[in-house]
Amino acid sequence: MVPSPINLTEKLALFSDHWNPRIVGRYNGNEIRLAKVQGVFSWHSHADTDELFLVLEGELTIEFRDRVVRLLPGEMIVVPRGVEHRPTAMIETHIMLLDHEGASNTGEQPNEYTRAKLEVI
Amino acid sequence: MVPSPINLTEKLALFSDHWNPRIVGRYNGNEIRLAKVQGVFSWHSHADTDELFLVLEGELTIEFRDRVVRLLPGEMIVVPRGVEHRPTAMIETHIMLLDHEGASNTGEQPNEYTRAKLEVI
Repeated sequence: MVPSPINLTEKLALFSDHWNPRIVGRYNGNEIRLAKVQGVFSWHSHADTDELFLVLEGELTIEFRDRVVRLLPGEMIVVPRGVEHRPTAMIETHIMLLDHEGASNTGEQPNEYTRAKLEVI
Repeated sequence: MVPSPINLTEKLALFSDHWNPRIVGRYNGNEIRLAKVQGVFSWHSHADTDELFLVLEGELTIEFRDRVVRLLPGEMIVVPRGVEHRPTAMIETHIMLLDHEGASNTGEQPNEYTRAKLEVI
């Protein structure tokens, strides 16, 4: 059974809230997620999964404890498991994420941004 | 240790040959690969890994035994492990791929397209 193609723009048009990733596909035990983000997120880390960020639109800043990375559309970074980071976007920014299945969006640090169960779209 | 950001356009400018994926990053035991493709590839399947295709530029056709899928920029598909497929591109097309580490680009069907060891760029 081959899944259908995923059109990123069409999927992004299905929601508008920030910091609430949707699941759009699965790959080798990982979830392909899309999110719209704006503002400052919380510091967190993921003990059991690397996290891939690919910027589709806007501009994403990711703070690490020792440096800051700025990502424009067509740029990506893989944050290794266990590494603390804090994403920030000054303007509305659209990103694709990869996380291991079931990984919390706030890692090991539950807070007001934590989404208990991500919606599949 | 946080890896550096990956600029997909800059990485794609580093090579010009077709059907020869380069490794640009790693995520949870998988390789993030970039490739330029044009023409008709071989029918193949991957026994031990799903394969994610994301089109960055051009147009990719993927034939399956029971249907054909056409992908434009911003569109992706995950081909499940074990499913036979044949990618084709009528014009030069740039794609991002995810495969499990070490997975052959022609799956279980070695042929003239097989790249024994992929270059890391």
